[in-house]
Amino acid sequence: MTTMKSPEGPSPALFFQTINAHMRTAALKSAIELDVFSAIAEGHGSPQALAQRCKGSERGLRMLGDYLTVGGFLNKHGDEYRLTPDSELFLTTTSPAYLGPVLDFMLSYPLVEGFKQLTGAVRKGGTVVGDEGTLAPEHPEWVTFARSMVPLMKGPAEWIANWVRQEAPGTRKVLDVAAGHGTFGIEIAQKIPEAEVTAQDWPNVLTVARENAQTAGITKRFYELPGSAFDVEFEKDYDVILLTNFLHHFDVPTCDTFLKKVHGSLKPGGYVITLEFIPNEDRISPASMAEFCLIMLATTPAGDAYVFSEYDRMFRHAGFGESLMQDVPASNERVIITKK
Amino acid sequence: MTTMKSPEGPSPALFFQTINAHMRTAALKSAIELDVFSAIAEGHGSPQALAQRCKGSERGLRMLGDYLTVGGFLNKHGDEYRLTPDSELFLTTTSPAYLGPVLDFMLSYPLVEGFKQLTGAVRKGGTVVGDEGTLAPEHPEWVTFARSMVPLMKGPAEWIANWVRQEAPGTRKVLDVAAGHGTFGIEIAQKIPEAEVTAQDWPNVLTVARENAQTAGITKRFYELPGSAFDVEFEKDYDVILLTNFLHHFDVPTCDTFLKKVHGSLKPGGYVITLEFIPNEDRISPASMAEFCLIMLATTPAGDAYVFSEYDRMFRHAGFGESLMQDVPASNERVIITKK
Repeated sequence: MTTMKSPEGPSPALFFQTINAHMRTAALKSAIELDVFSAIAEGHGSPQALAQRCKGSERGLRMLGDYLTVGGFLNKHGDEYRLTPDSELFLTTTSPAYLGPVLDFMLSYPLVEGFKQLTGAVRKGGTVVGDEGTLAPEHPEWVTFARSMVPLMKGPAEWIANWVRQEAPGTRKVLDVAAGHGTFGIEIAQKIPEAEVTAQDWPNVLTVARENAQTAGITKRFYELPGSAFDVEFEKDYDVILLTNFLHHFDVPTCDTFLKKVHGSLKPGGYVITLEFIPNEDRISPASMAEFCLIMLATTPAGDAYVFSEYDRMFRHAGFGESLMQDVPASNERVIITKK
Repeated sequence: MTTMKSPEGPSPALFFQTINAHMRTAALKSAIELDVFSAIAEGHGSPQALAQRCKGSERGLRMLGDYLTVGGFLNKHGDEYRLTPDSELFLTTTSPAYLGPVLDFMLSYPLVEGFKQLTGAVRKGGTVVGDEGTLAPEHPEWVTFARSMVPLMKGPAEWIANWVRQEAPGTRKVLDVAAGHGTFGIEIAQKIPEAEVTAQDWPNVLTVARENAQTAGITKRFYELPGSAFDVEFEKDYDVILLTNFLHHFDVPTCDTFLKKVHGSLKPGGYVITLEFIPNEDRISPASMAEFCLIMLATTPAGDAYVFSEYDRMFRHAGFGESLMQDVPASNERVIITKK
């Protein structure tokens, strides 16, 4: 990606790529806002045709198109742009895997502002955006999250539901902690017709999960538990408790205490299924999971990208035995399965 | 850099890397603001030692350190961070090649704001930040530029001065158009003791060039020409006219007209030396030069990363003959030499 000369000698190339990296974010955001990828899929490949279809300028679309080509999102043939297979699948609005909506969360104010004030967060050791960052009660961010992240969570949710059907086919009661969009519990309810799902989250977020349960046709087996996961009472006989993208927001003592509550709410033989960004023990690989720690620093008071040994210790501390970690295909997260 | 599974199949990895790319910019900016690289160079390798030296939190510096390691700026040995050779050379304050100051320009308001409003720029076909973007008369941006970009321009300035000394040793009068920091003219004055340099720029910017000429000890051969390059009168007998990072800001008709003025101000046999971001004719390679077009879209009304054939045509249109392009080692720019 660099054109700096003297590849054997020192080079400021990485410095410049990194300082200018914010431009990549802006370019992709603009392309999605202008629906450039769908336009190309429809055959509007030239800057002129794109300008007309996307209500932009020919000059602007040529420059954006070239930049996106360099960035790997398009191919260029003469003066015409064409989609890569990944752009066609993930970035055209008619694709079922369209990722456009996740921008609403991934470039939302708390995230962008958190990184704007990253130096302050490094100094303090936690977010400096509000007292609790995105963890403030009923933060509207989580409604955005619930509405926008479904396309991304579909794959891991299917993987987890398949695992439950295969390994714990007798599952009847599922608790979906901080359910958000509700997708994880809903997938299980769809795969196991006898299973009932309780979705716990803030009341404002649960409206989204409820809509999704209606769409999925599982309303009769869908229950709501509104409130904070730390405050509301859990029933005592769950077969499966789902902790998806939840524990990373909190410090270790908070996780320890919460996992004791989870332990007390599971049937003997029941499972906790944890979906998380879990880097290797070196904390610097794999890249996408290791880098997640900085999002926690910028946007939460004390969250982290915990490594497996840390999660394992938290679960044991709460009374569980062995935990097992598995990669989730086509995802940048991992699953920990912990049996009571 | 990706950990997404099924490398043969479709992957949203590039999408996520790109949407999150703004975090890379923020992390490097914070590391420079906190002087993390100098601290490591001094032997403060652990998060604890870094926290003390950089007046931050241990947690924050561990997370930032891991992120920078993933990003290629550090190595990690156990819990200690070490510098890469490039980080040591370009990112420690005691290094003569320290690049920290260029952040003031590269992350200045007009640039960051321009990219925040990139969608508007694609629609309009030019910047939507103010009427003229960074080209407004006496825009303070150019003082920032002049003060911050010297470390970056030192290499190309030396290359150009060496070329002039070898190929045009009889050079006596040099005009440095939009001189900024003045480094390009000053280097020639230092390498050719008989050469006099006239630095043209806005009066507020020329104060920076004047300071640099004093530091270089060439004040007696340093003249100032305050005002817009388009409006002020040029003398008629220059041996060399320097057009460094200037033409890319303007549209072709403006460049055409300006180059006629340049042609009229050169002695027969004199040279125009143009330093620019010049992608190949495909406009999508090399990456760093091709991507420059988007900066012009976001921050200027009509600038561009022109390809060589466009520059060649502009020069011929102004009365020049053949132009020759050369790569500048260890730079992401190229030089065009045009003889009158």
